[in-house]
Amino acid sequence: MFEKILIANRGEIAVRIIRAAKELGIKTVAIFSEADRESLHVSLADEAVCIGPAMSTESYLKIPNVIAAAEVTGATAIHPGYGFLAENAQFARICEMHNITFIGPSPECIINMGDKATARKTAIENEVPITEGTDIIKTIEEAKMHVNERITYPVMIKATAGGGGKGMRIARNDEELEANIIAAQNEAEAAFGNPDVYIEKFVEDPRHIEIQIIGDKHGNVVHLGERDCSIQRRHQKLIEEAPSVVLTDDVREAMGEAAVKLAKAINYDSAGTLEFLVDKTNNFFFMEMNTRVQVEHTVTEMITGVDIIKEQIIAAAGGELTVKQEDVVLTGHAIECRINAEDSEAGFLPSPGKLTKYIVAGGNGVRIDSHSYEGYEISPFYDSMIAKLIVHGQTREEAINRMRRALEEYRIEGVDTTIPFHLKVLDNEAYQSGEVYTSFIEEYFGDK
Amino acid sequence: MFEKILIANRGEIAVRIIRAAKELGIKTVAIFSEADRESLHVSLADEAVCIGPAMSTESYLKIPNVIAAAEVTGATAIHPGYGFLAENAQFARICEMHNITFIGPSPECIINMGDKATARKTAIENEVPITEGTDIIKTIEEAKMHVNERITYPVMIKATAGGGGKGMRIARNDEELEANIIAAQNEAEAAFGNPDVYIEKFVEDPRHIEIQIIGDKHGNVVHLGERDCSIQRRHQKLIEEAPSVVLTDDVREAMGEAAVKLAKAINYDSAGTLEFLVDKTNNFFFMEMNTRVQVEHTVTEMITGVDIIKEQIIAAAGGELTVKQEDVVLTGHAIECRINAEDSEAGFLPSPGKLTKYIVAGGNGVRIDSHSYEGYEISPFYDSMIAKLIVHGQTREEAINRMRRALEEYRIEGVDTTIPFHLKVLDNEAYQSGEVYTSFIEEYFGDK
Repeated sequence: MFEKILIANRGEIAVRIIRAAKELGIKTVAIFSEADRESLHVSLADEAVCIGPAMSTESYLKIPNVIAAAEVTGATAIHPGYGFLAENAQFARICEMHNITFIGPSPECIINMGDKATARKTAIENEVPITEGTDIIKTIEEAKMHVNERITYPVMIKATAGGGGKGMRIARNDEELEANIIAAQNEAEAAFGNPDVYIEKFVEDPRHIEIQIIGDKHGNVVHLGERDCSIQRRHQKLIEEAPSVVLTDDVREAMGEAAVKLAKAINYDSAGTLEFLVDKTNNFFFMEMNTRVQVEHTVTEMITGVDIIKEQIIAAAGGELTVKQEDVVLTGHAIECRINAEDSEAGFLPSPGKLTKYIVAGGNGVRIDSHSYEGYEISPFYDSMIAKLIVHGQTREEAINRMRRALEEYRIEGVDTTIPFHLKVLDNEAYQSGEVYTSFIEEYFGDK
Repeated sequence: MFEKILIANRGEIAVRIIRAAKELGIKTVAIFSEADRESLHVSLADEAVCIGPAMSTESYLKIPNVIAAAEVTGATAIHPGYGFLAENAQFARICEMHNITFIGPSPECIINMGDKATARKTAIENEVPITEGTDIIKTIEEAKMHVNERITYPVMIKATAGGGGKGMRIARNDEELEANIIAAQNEAEAAFGNPDVYIEKFVEDPRHIEIQIIGDKHGNVVHLGERDCSIQRRHQKLIEEAPSVVLTDDVREAMGEAAVKLAKAINYDSAGTLEFLVDKTNNFFFMEMNTRVQVEHTVTEMITGVDIIKEQIIAAAGGELTVKQEDVVLTGHAIECRINAEDSEAGFLPSPGKLTKYIVAGGNGVRIDSHSYEGYEISPFYDSMIAKLIVHGQTREEAINRMRRALEEYRIEGVDTTIPFHLKVLDNEAYQSGEVYTSFIEEYFGDK
């Protein structure tokens, strides 16, 4: 096992990883930008190194500084968390070159799954269902031909380097297709430095359901059931839950098996997530794979008891997963609300500032993952997350009631938060009855 | 179901009950003394009524004030929590007379189980094993005869109205017996207004293991497994865990069945706990029954998923338990540490004062039950509890490691706390290997 690891991240996920490492008896090194000196991850780690100014390109994204911090402190492994360098294959390679273990999958897995067109190909090779679609679009004419002759409208145009909804456009006819391919290419070029887009059949009112998998270097891959992340605003997840209310055991097993098959085919040996669209009759279509831990991994931990970050660290150190597929039992129901410093009445505008009052929710079935505390300042430089509030109940109904009371008792002053918005969603009857699709927020709350 | 309940308590247990009520959609009324105006239970409840000055005899124990608060707010039921009026049969009767449901067992159950000699008799009638012992002692001569002819030394002298270790003395010979009967009688008279004591065989190095039961008004009684509360200081529990490392499934089942049998025999229809001593060869001896929820009910909730307070409220309202015996599955391992404002280096002297810094532990498997927050003042008028820190892990080892990291990250300034002491216990090898007896603290930490 590693003696000391460096956490190349900030905020709640840095805290999350430090906790897992401590429980495994591993020493921890935090890195921080000048803006994050007072963040909880800095004081919770055994050591902390300032790696640059607030701008993440000058600190958290600056590979030489991160590597230097690891070398100076003697950390032999780096956990990248999510975001920042987590899906940067080049970083993973540089770690390797410096004899530092990258706690994540191989650079090849990151590259192949990060490129969505390649990921789709791999899925097809492994009989994982995908929506009808195309390779990278070369000309508008070619695109029109594929759509009209094979895929049929409506379709989704997607950036192959995409993420977070950027470079994604729907087209319902030839005119929209032409305009939106050009728009998506421009957006993709600006956001990712790569203008490539491809086309997929657009599934109407789908659910976003994803399968969590974990693998090790001994060829073991286990899936931990699904998460329903359909409550999204502009492709950004807001509320996640597990299990999904619509999956039958058969469909769950089929999705899990497909995910494991694909992961084994690419020798995947870390935590990862396969995202699927599920239509109204439980047909599922692979969308993409995230080769890192996700924000919402927590709800899976709540219903399985498996500590995903610990398994990830153990696997990276060459150990075997502590859990076998037959031991995975889904118990009860879990929901996560992302509590952000945003004004949900004003287009979710970031609301950075000092937490002048901060009393967390607690009690039975409540988990808080956070780097915040009273007096802490939510920085304008990074994402606006204050905390992840996760609840577990014996049933979905109990989990919903628990989440409402927990949101109501959470006291945060000094910044606007998404708590009022979450309460509205939880009070919504369609939500309560499980009628959630990725279009849910748009339908019930307009383009908020 | 009740529309509105009053919580006749303060501190963390008042917060705990408010949370359960909210999740059931029940309105809540808090009561508070003048010293507790800023306590979290006051602001979390839908309504709050000041019922008197700081001294609990003038507020939380003053039955007319409590009843008046219920009547004035229209609360139709009262949850007494633990301590204060929770085991006061007279209070339960007065509630009944005012058409207020007492959320707890019948006055008869409280009286019969509260009187430890009667409780022992009931146990014998229901074939629940007890230690050899006596009825209430009338003369020293009679006591000597019983001990020498039947029970044999060492013996424990106990107050029949006792609790919290008061009126308890060990005797190892006739001289000690005489002196300690008189001392125990005096102590019992002073503490409880009742000098009656009885004698029991003293089990050497026992474990304190208790069985949680819940019953309803339809004759259902379910047991939720055991808690090991052997880590005690002067008969005050400090650390509790579930399940016990020593119980075999057979012994667990036998203890559970004995508990259910006794509870059914007395028509017990609420949450309750049967406390047992377990000797080194897993013989178990009924000690007493607590006819109320206990501080450590949380660890049982963590391994069963059953919300004991909710079940208690549902049962009091005439509903059926939501859980059947065959559905009770013990999953993983849970530990609770009572974080008190006490100086563990100075005989656990209370250390009241303002929490100038208060950052709770969190993350995977961590639960906090507390009424405290940054700026809150721990009052010298009541118990010194700041919070209950509860962790759950897949194994006892994981739970121990999780508790250590959670204790280490908990940041409390302004008062002394028991956190350093808890860390010492958790670092102790005998504790880690499960070698815990009620004499553990004395043996490893002296009479601290």
